[in-house]
Amino acid sequence: MSVKFAVLGHGVVGSGVVELFYKNKKSIEKRAGTEMDIKYILDLRDFPDSPYKDKFTKDFNDILNDDEVTSVAECMGGVEPAFTFVKSCLEKGKSVSTSNKELVAEKGDILLRAAKEHNCNFFFEASVGGAIPIIRPLHKCLAANDIEKVAGILNGTTNFILTKMYNENMPFSEALSLAQKLGYAEKDPTADIEGHDACRKICIISSLVFGKHVYPKDVYTKGISQIELCDVAAADVLGYTIKLLASVRKTAGGKILPAVMPTLLPYESIMSGVNDVFNAVLVYGDGIDQAMFYGRGAGKLPTASAVMGDVIEAVKHKVTVFSQSWDSSEDNSFIDSIDNLSARWYFRVPLGTASPEGSYEHENGISYITENSLTFKEASEKAAALNAAAFMPVFE
Amino acid sequence: MSVKFAVLGHGVVGSGVVELFYKNKKSIEKRAGTEMDIKYILDLRDFPDSPYKDKFTKDFNDILNDDEVTSVAECMGGVEPAFTFVKSCLEKGKSVSTSNKELVAEKGDILLRAAKEHNCNFFFEASVGGAIPIIRPLHKCLAANDIEKVAGILNGTTNFILTKMYNENMPFSEALSLAQKLGYAEKDPTADIEGHDACRKICIISSLVFGKHVYPKDVYTKGISQIELCDVAAADVLGYTIKLLASVRKTAGGKILPAVMPTLLPYESIMSGVNDVFNAVLVYGDGIDQAMFYGRGAGKLPTASAVMGDVIEAVKHKVTVFSQSWDSSEDNSFIDSIDNLSARWYFRVPLGTASPEGSYEHENGISYITENSLTFKEASEKAAALNAAAFMPVFE
Repeated sequence: MSVKFAVLGHGVVGSGVVELFYKNKKSIEKRAGTEMDIKYILDLRDFPDSPYKDKFTKDFNDILNDDEVTSVAECMGGVEPAFTFVKSCLEKGKSVSTSNKELVAEKGDILLRAAKEHNCNFFFEASVGGAIPIIRPLHKCLAANDIEKVAGILNGTTNFILTKMYNENMPFSEALSLAQKLGYAEKDPTADIEGHDACRKICIISSLVFGKHVYPKDVYTKGISQIELCDVAAADVLGYTIKLLASVRKTAGGKILPAVMPTLLPYESIMSGVNDVFNAVLVYGDGIDQAMFYGRGAGKLPTASAVMGDVIEAVKHKVTVFSQSWDSSEDNSFIDSIDNLSARWYFRVPLGTASPEGSYEHENGISYITENSLTFKEASEKAAALNAAAFMPVFE
Repeated sequence: MSVKFAVLGHGVVGSGVVELFYKNKKSIEKRAGTEMDIKYILDLRDFPDSPYKDKFTKDFNDILNDDEVTSVAECMGGVEPAFTFVKSCLEKGKSVSTSNKELVAEKGDILLRAAKEHNCNFFFEASVGGAIPIIRPLHKCLAANDIEKVAGILNGTTNFILTKMYNENMPFSEALSLAQKLGYAEKDPTADIEGHDACRKICIISSLVFGKHVYPKDVYTKGISQIELCDVAAADVLGYTIKLLASVRKTAGGKILPAVMPTLLPYESIMSGVNDVFNAVLVYGDGIDQAMFYGRGAGKLPTASAVMGDVIEAVKHKVTVFSQSWDSSEDNSFIDSIDNLSARWYFRVPLGTASPEGSYEHENGISYITENSLTFKEASEKAAALNAAAFMPVFE
């Protein structure tokens, strides 16, 4: 018997899924333990030159009402109509694999519940870290660990820009233009640059690791648009690199503290070597100490590869994988305030300000890293009092 | 109903499994979806002060013949009696999770077949890369990929020694003594230093990725005992670090070429930042491009964490996970000769030898990297002709 699946959306990722499936069909079928084929591709556009043009439909109901289709790959992006489509599929018992981080970050709990109730699966490996296997290792291989902290470079666009600023002294605006030219950044780059994309991904990781849905609106998020070349250069002199870091950690009183902000990483940290469009996720557990997952966080085939891996899993698992799930959150009281984030901090203060030993004086001010930890609240107050042009936490 | 499992061996890893299980019992049971407990711990020694002393037995048959025990964690090490014990368990339908790389590298195909025939699982995540989830991501998340190459730093002891040679200019013998003092190296360090440990691990990875059992005896293996400080220093000047690299790649004619040898990694490579006792595995696939998995490759709790993760998987999967498997190999004709390995090469030739532009002259000779690729055979011949004191491949 041949298993039939459908692909929703024929954009970059969706077309990648089709391409990768037919390229590696034989080995995919071996891994899945059954013959497989794509029965439908949903897209409102026409693709008259596609070798698979017979499979295209513009009507989602063709897929929903075809009982032969037992698995669906959702590669449309955005919350709607993806949410309605995915929910309908799950309610019909069709497993869904998605690359849509916005969907998972906003509606994951509802879709996971629907999957559970209808004995199928909602998988989302591709929604975080593109090709990097992170969702499954987090919930499976690390199942025996008490996870204390997860931190990641989860946005390739900003990492590309920061790498250019570092290695080539290229100003932010120029690096952004280059990223756009190379197709790494959208025309409207806000979601990447201001950290919203990384925020969605850390929401998904936080929800999975700590078991309750974390919404983007509850996560302190600061992007990289205010980072200047002088800060990059000063960090380098002090032995650090600046990365847009998304993190979540356990804090006092059983709370968790997710946040997205530019952060200094010491050169000894393996994550400081994650450059260009690559992503990485570092996980801290009581058993493993630390483990890092690294790879391409975006792109046609890398993301398609993760979606296809999930489709294969869905084909193999006829029942719900209940542990790869989380509950709805009744309120956000389990999320700690950013004010309580404790770290050492990088400050850039005006020339002439009294500054500690080891400070680095340059034409745009004096840069240094505090010897002791301060909370975000204390660091903000200090930054205001010192008239600091920049302050960022140091990762520990 | 409470699921009962047994732990074979109460050495470093086995006692870690017991410790980690009782520490995180509640969350482990949540992940497994059932109550769990350890019913037996097998060891020939007495542990009168253990809080779990009632669970100890010296008779393996207590475990084998107790139908309540459905899962076993094997942490004894060595081929025998581990092989006999594990095979008997599988033949009784008890799933086994092991950290024993020697067992998997020598007998994996037989044990995987026994698991399949008796509808249970033989899991071995902990046998490669300790805490690093690599086996499961390789066979699952990357299922949609055609994997072209896998390369890893798979031995923590040698990586610790090389890191000391690099960062502190510490001679090999002194670094080895320090590793022994810190418990990172055995009294007889041969298996680590000469690459046998890394060889077993690349055998397991090769077997899993390419589907046929690869035996250690068929893998070219060279350790780090001949690396001198002057080579480390020269590599640094040329922009490289030396690591003991275990790798396997597809070669012409459908063959594969596994090998373990000291290898130069360019500083731009993320793997060059893997230091101390940390391990990493870099995977190249047609979909993902590259992905790296990094973490502690050894140690009590890291390894125990991987074993425990497998036990949880075994509890959740009542049927054989058939794709995490490979076939027996009838002969070794699918393994390519090391002679055909193609790479650029590092040479250290005597002072006074004619050498190419960009060479680095130092008191122990002239070090350089060839501009073009040569096969291992060609490089060996060249090394002999030039009377080279050292030659090593460059990783690409």
